[in-house]
Amino acid sequence: MTPDAAATPIASPPGKPLVGVVMGSDSDWPTMRLAAEALASMGVPFEARVVSAHRTPEEMVAYAKEAEGRGLKVIIAGAGGAAHLPGMIAALTVLPVLGVPVQSKALSGLDSLLSIVQMPGGVPVGTLAIGNAGAKNAGLLAVRILGATRPELRKKLHAYRDGEAERVRAQELT
Amino acid sequence: MTPDAAATPIASPPGKPLVGVVMGSDSDWPTMRLAAEALASMGVPFEARVVSAHRTPEEMVAYAKEAEGRGLKVIIAGAGGAAHLPGMIAALTVLPVLGVPVQSKALSGLDSLLSIVQMPGGVPVGTLAIGNAGAKNAGLLAVRILGATRPELRKKLHAYRDGEAERVRAQELT
Amino acid sequence: MTPDAAATPIASPPGKPLVGVVMGSDSDWPTMRLAAEALASMGVPFEARVVSAHRTPEEMVAYAKEAEGRGLKVIIAGAGGAAHLPGMIAALTVLPVLGVPVQSKALSGLDSLLSIVQMPGGVPVGTLAIGNAGAKNAGLLAVRILGATRPELRKKLHAYRDGEAERVRAQELT
Amino acid sequence: MTPDAAATPIASPPGKPLVGVVMGSDSDWPTMRLAAEALASMGVPFEARVVSAHRTPEEMVAYAKEAEGRGLKVIIAGAGGAAHLPGMIAALTVLPVLGVPVQSKALSGLDSLLSIVQMPGGVPVGTLAIGNAGAKNAGLLAVRILGATRPELRKKLHAYRDGEAERVRAQELT
Amino acid sequence: MTPDAAATPIASPPGKPLVGVVMGSDSDWPTMRLAAEALASMGVPFEARVVSAHRTPEEMVAYAKEAEGRGLKVIIAGAGGAAHLPGMIAALTVLPVLGVPVQSKALSGLDSLLSIVQMPGGVPVGTLAIGNAGAKNAGLLAVRILGATRPELRKKLHAYRDGEAERVRAQELT
Amino acid sequence: MTPDAAATPIASPPGKPLVGVVMGSDSDWPTMRLAAEALASMGVPFEARVVSAHRTPEEMVAYAKEAEGRGLKVIIAGAGGAAHLPGMIAALTVLPVLGVPVQSKALSGLDSLLSIVQMPGGVPVGTLAIGNAGAKNAGLLAVRILGATRPELRKKLHAYRDGEAERVRAQELT
Amino acid sequence: MTPDAAATPIASPPGKPLVGVVMGSDSDWPTMRLAAEALASMGVPFEARVVSAHRTPEEMVAYAKEAEGRGLKVIIAGAGGAAHLPGMIAALTVLPVLGVPVQSKALSGLDSLLSIVQMPGGVPVGTLAIGNAGAKNAGLLAVRILGATRPELRKKLHAYRDGEAERVRAQELT
Amino acid sequence: MTPDAAATPIASPPGKPLVGVVMGSDSDWPTMRLAAEALASMGVPFEARVVSAHRTPEEMVAYAKEAEGRGLKVIIAGAGGAAHLPGMIAALTVLPVLGVPVQSKALSGLDSLLSIVQMPGGVPVGTLAIGNAGAKNAGLLAVRILGATRPELRKKLHAYRDGEAERVRAQELT
Repeated sequence: MTPDAAATPIASPPGKPLVGVVMGSDSDWPTMRLAAEALASMGVPFEARVVSAHRTPEEMVAYAKEAEGRGLKVIIAGAGGAAHLPGMIAALTVLPVLGVPVQSKALSGLDSLLSIVQMPGGVPVGTLAIGNAGAKNAGLLAVRILGATRPELRKKLHAYRDGEAERVRAQELT
Repeated sequence: MTPDAAATPIASPPGKPLVGVVMGSDSDWPTMRLAAEALASMGVPFEARVVSAHRTPEEMVAYAKEAEGRGLKVIIAGAGGAAHLPGMIAALTVLPVLGVPVQSKALSGLDSLLSIVQMPGGVPVGTLAIGNAGAKNAGLLAVRILGATRPELRKKLHAYRDGEAERVRAQELT
Repeated sequence: MTPDAAATPIASPPGKPLVGVVMGSDSDWPTMRLAAEALASMGVPFEARVVSAHRTPEEMVAYAKEAEGRGLKVIIAGAGGAAHLPGMIAALTVLPVLGVPVQSKALSGLDSLLSIVQMPGGVPVGTLAIGNAGAKNAGLLAVRILGATRPELRKKLHAYRDGEAERVRAQELT
Repeated sequence: MTPDAAATPIASPPGKPLVGVVMGSDSDWPTMRLAAEALASMGVPFEARVVSAHRTPEEMVAYAKEAEGRGLKVIIAGAGGAAHLPGMIAALTVLPVLGVPVQSKALSGLDSLLSIVQMPGGVPVGTLAIGNAGAKNAGLLAVRILGATRPELRKKLHAYRDGEAERVRAQELT
Repeated sequence: MTPDAAATPIASPPGKPLVGVVMGSDSDWPTMRLAAEALASMGVPFEARVVSAHRTPEEMVAYAKEAEGRGLKVIIAGAGGAAHLPGMIAALTVLPVLGVPVQSKALSGLDSLLSIVQMPGGVPVGTLAIGNAGAKNAGLLAVRILGATRPELRKKLHAYRDGEAERVRAQELT
Repeated sequence: MTPDAAATPIASPPGKPLVGVVMGSDSDWPTMRLAAEALASMGVPFEARVVSAHRTPEEMVAYAKEAEGRGLKVIIAGAGGAAHLPGMIAALTVLPVLGVPVQSKALSGLDSLLSIVQMPGGVPVGTLAIGNAGAKNAGLLAVRILGATRPELRKKLHAYRDGEAERVRAQELT
Repeated sequence: MTPDAAATPIASPPGKPLVGVVMGSDSDWPTMRLAAEALASMGVPFEARVVSAHRTPEEMVAYAKEAEGRGLKVIIAGAGGAAHLPGMIAALTVLPVLGVPVQSKALSGLDSLLSIVQMPGGVPVGTLAIGNAGAKNAGLLAVRILGATRPELRKKLHAYRDGEAERVRAQELT
Repeated sequence: MTPDAAATPIASPPGKPLVGVVMGSDSDWPTMRLAAEALASMGVPFEARVVSAHRTPEEMVAYAKEAEGRGLKVIIAGAGGAAHLPGMIAALTVLPVLGVPVQSKALSGLDSLLSIVQMPGGVPVGTLAIGNAGAKNAGLLAVRILGATRPELRKKLHAYRDGEAERVRAQELT
């Protein structure tokens, strides 16, 4: 991604949001925007918000509790360090929740990863890789989830996979 | 879980399987059966199979490629050590794939976790916790995913959450 | 601690509780009771409760928000794995919160530790050691905190330290 | 923090110091000044000193032993690598001691963290996160501790939390 | 290696390739080219290709299955993060497979290493060090393997060792 | 493996040894015997010896230097903790050397693994998994290496793979 | 070591102690006695004491400061968890100090190791392996240090090495 | 250290070398020169050489075996990654050997540390911290060892400690 690209706002495709992309701070946005980009590229309407488990805990509770009723189908939550947002959201909704461990400064996201993935039995968070790859994949996994009842998304996912394969086939080593 | 319970076969609820539970070896079954139990307890038809990325790679390819056509909606894959099964399946289908890091002997599942969760951008695996909690949660996350279009599952998930809360409220510390 | 001792209920000293000892599950109690024992041995009234961030999130919010008004002075929170309870409580009160990482099965509490200690700037959790030593020390640190305005606690802490030193001096190596 | 801000001396609010901020070397000051800033921003008088466990061990002993008598209420100690200062101070006083793991070069502060947090039963150190977030939070936790008997600090802490929430609410993702 | 050197294409010595050097992405080439360089410097014909376990899984299967019949004697596979390529290739051929853990961004290749080396009994991958040293050594280990029946390679390996020893003897410390 | 099986001596198939299996102590034999078993099961003559890098360093030097002349084709070396044997042998021969990290007590073989795999450029050790799986795989990788010029070994390896696949296919989950 | 052997007191050889063996608690003695045994087996007079950095800090200061004057030549210090004893002693004497990381419960001695070895420049602690091997080696390293001016110790060390080599040569693999 | 200082050769004080400073490659010299500087600053004659366990193993054997006869009293060995030099030297001499884990690229010296410190019982290496602090401390520990019979070194060590304390006392926090 070029710096300019990073600065471009990401607009949701039109329509009622199907996916909520939340994060604990706008400093997580350079990572989490890759989730938004993946959703946008597949034509999935989304909303992106800062909802902090630690600084706006009651908004977080409200957000998670209202998500199902508002028609969201998947929530993607990213956080770093002692990353509590994905697990707390998963505790407050029965929607599928995907967690993105944002790369932290001292421990490179190992803390974020363990804080998100090691949930106790009963409250699942589908966790993706640390950092950018994880954010992008959270978006794609949301599309896979939505694809069950949206054949056009399935088709786009197949096309995406074909494109990726083509891209690999075209790579030259010099 | 009592030892007896562990020895009881887990029958899928009747119906065409919606979830495929696969694992690299029957030695993973004591862990992965918790995924099956979660699905069974919610009334979700599933199939459970040994499909090894390393010992039956071509069956694995076939399984993953046919899953969508066969009507599966979610695949849960568990593996330990250099755990390649979840990621390889995710590479071969556009269904949502959930990965369960089985606890390994020497490194306690840290190797399993990193092998599953650190997927490159483009091929998502929603990863759960190491071991039993992760297997159970994979089952529950599959139910959440299926819940989008199956209101009775949503209802069961709400009931499950209420039950868990009740169970917590009833705990006494002596 | 002898097995019998472990089975003995720990009664709070009489009086309005000054310290709340909370944990995510009664399976944490064998660890967290050491915090209670430390408080009891110093004559500090406490309450011990199961309050789960993930299974009773709204009770947790209520507990944390009401703690100050109810006269609690310190909250000790223990949890294991993706341990969110201490940090979430700290987000919802301005009381000092102490966190105890309960030893987890696969990762021996490293996940618990990082989930508790790596809080973002703004929301502090004073974190103690993994497991029993940490639980005991959480109790003692609460007493140190209360000691600022309770000279009899200061006196007890000095006596405790003197006793510990005596105990060390009496150890013989054979 | 801008570079200029980093170079600005931090003056303690007037009054007898309530909190001692100590560190093993002036190279820890860029981290530990965030503790001092947090205290200053809340109007809590403090003192900041270099007291090295390894290079001035006897001054350290004297400092820790005299702290209670001099009227300090909390000690914040920061150190990196084999970080012994917080634990040694905690061994020599009954005041609450908060430890800040300074980020080390080779191991990114994991060594600092474990050296501080893994104290044996009997000698508690309330440990904060590695690096800047931990230093800031040590300051805030000291204020929470002091707040028990200083209602104006409680009020400031509530205001701080409200401000943080406002700040989060105002963040925009573009 | 100077930047210019890095940009120079590496031509295989003439002849039917004996070693296949494969990697999951051309972004692994700056590392994996050191394997190619080692082979070239010893006069061993090789081929280098991008073959992705995750993005072109079926080409990977075909590549691995055809390698023996095409006359390859050793396969060197490099990958980063959840690095599945070496193990999957090893599952699909009986040729010796050498794995190179490419250094990953967040976890510095520890994830790559564990994903490659922790193979289950039955499917061996001879794993080299993380990053450049590992790639170079994969090339050299392939030459050692080929040396069993190619005396001129044995001779070159002895000469290489002698040269390395000379180079060490000539190093001066000022 | 049953305890009885573990106590059975492993005889090399008749013939001049092609593989040397060495280890630092007879306490490594319960692990390393799995390498010997793999070789024996494939009909590959081997020798097994205790050769300690730290306690008989000069015998180690002699062993490594003479191995090529004595007709060995591959050396498998196992060691635990600060595991120097595989790398030192690799420094003293141009034969391919395979390293097995024996599971250590405190650090579960992570120390063994890093001590073996992280060799500097120029001196390769093909490293297998920690513990039993690694030992077995070292034997199998040696057979793969020998297979290049021994068609009957290739055949056996294909048969072994087919058998493993059959074994997987026959596994039932109850 | 047989259980009986473990229960046998270890008497120092006669003479003024040359080595001080100190530890933070008598619970460290099952490990640290291996240091004493090594010294006794070489005929080096020693003293063994519990001296706790955290529970008897002032005795520790006194012990370390008086050691040189009392004729000790080397101090061996063992501790677990947040292991401060070796480094604090090294700060208070100019004698060589050897540190033994006692294996801890949750983190298997990784915390002990890092707390001991990662000393800042200026205050060296020669650190040995985690647990029993480290304790034994601390004793042997003390003998090596004393050997510089005691030719009979040098002779014993050579004899010990010869014996170890013989022991290795006599090991049989069945 | 300024860049210029780093480029200045370090001359040994006159006299027969008492300490051998060895390292596996001249790329370790920027770290290991701090050991030499510490020795030079205390007036201890030393020699510094590149002696590679992996590339000149036989010179290493010879160096280690001849060291005692040549009058060396202590050997300081530094290496990175799979760092075998210190342990191998310790296996070949009865002189005290000090190990310095050089900071490695991928794993920041954790591999170096474990490869050096985790020696088996019987062959001790006194290990210092990763990187520059460890190298400096290896020099200082050698001086402590030599101090037993060289009162002027003891005096210098006391003076050094006093100077360090003064330096700490003079540090100002602004």
